[in-house]
Amino acid sequence: MTKTIAIVSGGMDSVVLAHMLRHEEHDLHLVSFNYGQRHSKELDFAKQCAADLRSPHNIVDLSGLQGLLKGSSLTSNDVAVPDGHYAEQTMRITVVPNRNAIMLNIAAGLAIAEGAKYVATGVHGGDHYIYPDCRPAFIKAVDAMLCVATDGFARKGFGVLAPFLNWTKGDIAAKGDAIGVDFNKTWSCYKGGDIHCGSCGTCFERREAFNEAGVQDPTQYLATPDYVDPRG
Amino acid sequence: MTKTIAIVSGGMDSVVLAHMLRHEEHDLHLVSFNYGQRHSKELDFAKQCAADLRSPHNIVDLSGLQGLLKGSSLTSNDVAVPDGHYAEQTMRITVVPNRNAIMLNIAAGLAIAEGAKYVATGVHGGDHYIYPDCRPAFIKAVDAMLCVATDGFARKGFGVLAPFLNWTKGDIAAKGDAIGVDFNKTWSCYKGGDIHCGSCGTCFERREAFNEAGVQDPTQYLATPDYVDPRG
Repeated sequence: MTKTIAIVSGGMDSVVLAHMLRHEEHDLHLVSFNYGQRHSKELDFAKQCAADLRSPHNIVDLSGLQGLLKGSSLTSNDVAVPDGHYAEQTMRITVVPNRNAIMLNIAAGLAIAEGAKYVATGVHGGDHYIYPDCRPAFIKAVDAMLCVATDGFARKGFGVLAPFLNWTKGDIAAKGDAIGVDFNKTWSCYKGGDIHCGSCGTCFERREAFNEAGVQDPTQYLATPDYVDPRG
Repeated sequence: MTKTIAIVSGGMDSVVLAHMLRHEEHDLHLVSFNYGQRHSKELDFAKQCAADLRSPHNIVDLSGLQGLLKGSSLTSNDVAVPDGHYAEQTMRITVVPNRNAIMLNIAAGLAIAEGAKYVATGVHGGDHYIYPDCRPAFIKAVDAMLCVATDGFARKGFGVLAPFLNWTKGDIAAKGDAIGVDFNKTWSCYKGGDIHCGSCGTCFERREAFNEAGVQDPTQYLATPDYVDPRG
């Protein structure tokens, strides 16, 4: 079996990723990151995913980065979480600088320590527009860098798996539905309430994904505002 | 002035790096990493360096990685620090997997947050043989990756500075001497005692560097064992 370190946040993309890799018979080891998010609700869902898949799971504490990565509403208490659809401006302020590269590199260190062949990430096509570190060119560059950085592991075929790189979030919802993922065991909302708020950018994205896939959305939302796509 | 994030451990390489960049009129911001070392003595020297240069300084707490990065004598209490010269085998067990890539990527995140143009590292030619993530090919790959990952910053010329990449540690000692670095304000020993032990791998390297450069070594060592180069 191929041993793979999968980065799992507890969101729907990464939870579907983990279940899909398990279906493909990877020997999984999950890793999550606490980078000083204002709520750690997502991490509870990552723990649940690891328990359901009976996979080892590490949560890496990067909360020391909180003060450094200022300007992001994910980590700073000075900035309100933007409501509404993820238009460019609202997305930009939720960017934690270089976050994917940091997570992939730590996961790669874990892969070396554990003798794993792959590091897997759930980045998908819907993130390309705003986040440079979710684009195909980035995944290619980080893969090349890790092959050089890890030397011996490179010779054995070490690399980055990003199977959703050119998928939409709707494709991910459809895949999860097809392999029986319980979406109630995934968390998207940035606000960390008891149930999904329904009005933040990630809640909008979540709804859209189910709509696009034609998959029943089991999520209970606090609000169901009239949805207006700001892109027109 | 060019704003630069310099990774400073408190060792002689990175302290000389910081002083050299200041001489070259960079607007410096220092960053150090606490990755669960068994002693944090080096970090005190990094703080002193920042104070001497009147630079902002952040210490990033990565001690959460300690349990993950097992097998390294820098972070694990299960492994004794190897004495003697850094021959390949003894060096290998002091490797923290993918450490330079992790530090460079976090420093790059800080560079984005601070609007800095460069991330600087003191990696040098003497590290090439054992550490894949100190080699020119690695620095080139991580530079390429960061340019893609940071997008807008890339367009403004963001990149990695590694001015010692093809220098020996002796070259670094000579440079530090030429620009007036006080080497008593640098720390090399892995053992973290009151003074340098004189017998661990990094103490040997330190001595060799001063010898090679023909620079007076001001360091007080606990032991001065008969030195035998294991390479013959």
